[in-house]
Amino acid sequence: MTPVVGHLTIDSADPGALAAWWSRVLGWQEVWRSDDGAEVAIGSPSGGSTNWLFTRVADTKTVKNRLHVDLRPPEDHGTELARLLELGAVRVDIGQGDAPWAVLADPEGNEFCLLVNTPAEIETYLRAPG
Amino acid sequence: MTPVVGHLTIDSADPGALAAWWSRVLGWQEVWRSDDGAEVAIGSPSGGSTNWLFTRVADTKTVKNRLHVDLRPPEDHGTELARLLELGAVRVDIGQGDAPWAVLADPEGNEFCLLVNTPAEIETYLRAPG
Repeated sequence: MTPVVGHLTIDSADPGALAAWWSRVLGWQEVWRSDDGAEVAIGSPSGGSTNWLFTRVADTKTVKNRLHVDLRPPEDHGTELARLLELGAVRVDIGQGDAPWAVLADPEGNEFCLLVNTPAEIETYLRAPG
Repeated sequence: MTPVVGHLTIDSADPGALAAWWSRVLGWQEVWRSDDGAEVAIGSPSGGSTNWLFTRVADTKTVKNRLHVDLRPPEDHGTELARLLELGAVRVDIGQGDAPWAVLADPEGNEFCLLVNTPAEIETYLRAPG
């Protein structure tokens, strides 16, 4: 018997706003909210992904996060990149050089990547992450 | 059309070792490895969770991670806590006070929590994270 990953928890200055932003990015929905709004969880309606829980903290981000999420575009990398930038993601430089993927940050500065390959394109590899 | 979460990426000094440690913790398996071993991905054989990708970095951890995972014990919190400590997890104090859950760190110092409730116990709540 092994434990289950309940959720990925993300420190946040404004959990409600950040959860709403990521729900728009991912097409996810709010699945739980604490009475005081200090904790807001979102999840994929189609399953298959770990839920995310945004939790209010007082301390601010000071260094590059050591954990981040990598997204796959639904169809075309460029189209999805444009959509993310339109939603308010910003490009950040963490020393990725001329990597083909895009390194972005959410409204609270959390780094994430938009990969090049779509889910369909990687079906030729056994659950490959690249 | 929205993007898919490809994986949760975790900076690591020794991706192979850390991936192996977490595979033991979670009962997951390696699903991909780069030729040079600098990137190792693990995933749940039963699905339902986002894959994790450990990637080699030169910089070391300096502050509490702003992203962490929360685990649910398969049956009993105390039994699972003992197993995690036996595997090499260590207790850490991030100011959680007398919280009922356990705050731990993996062999590279990444904080994670072992929650109190089992997956079965939270089935009475709609995908509740608490």
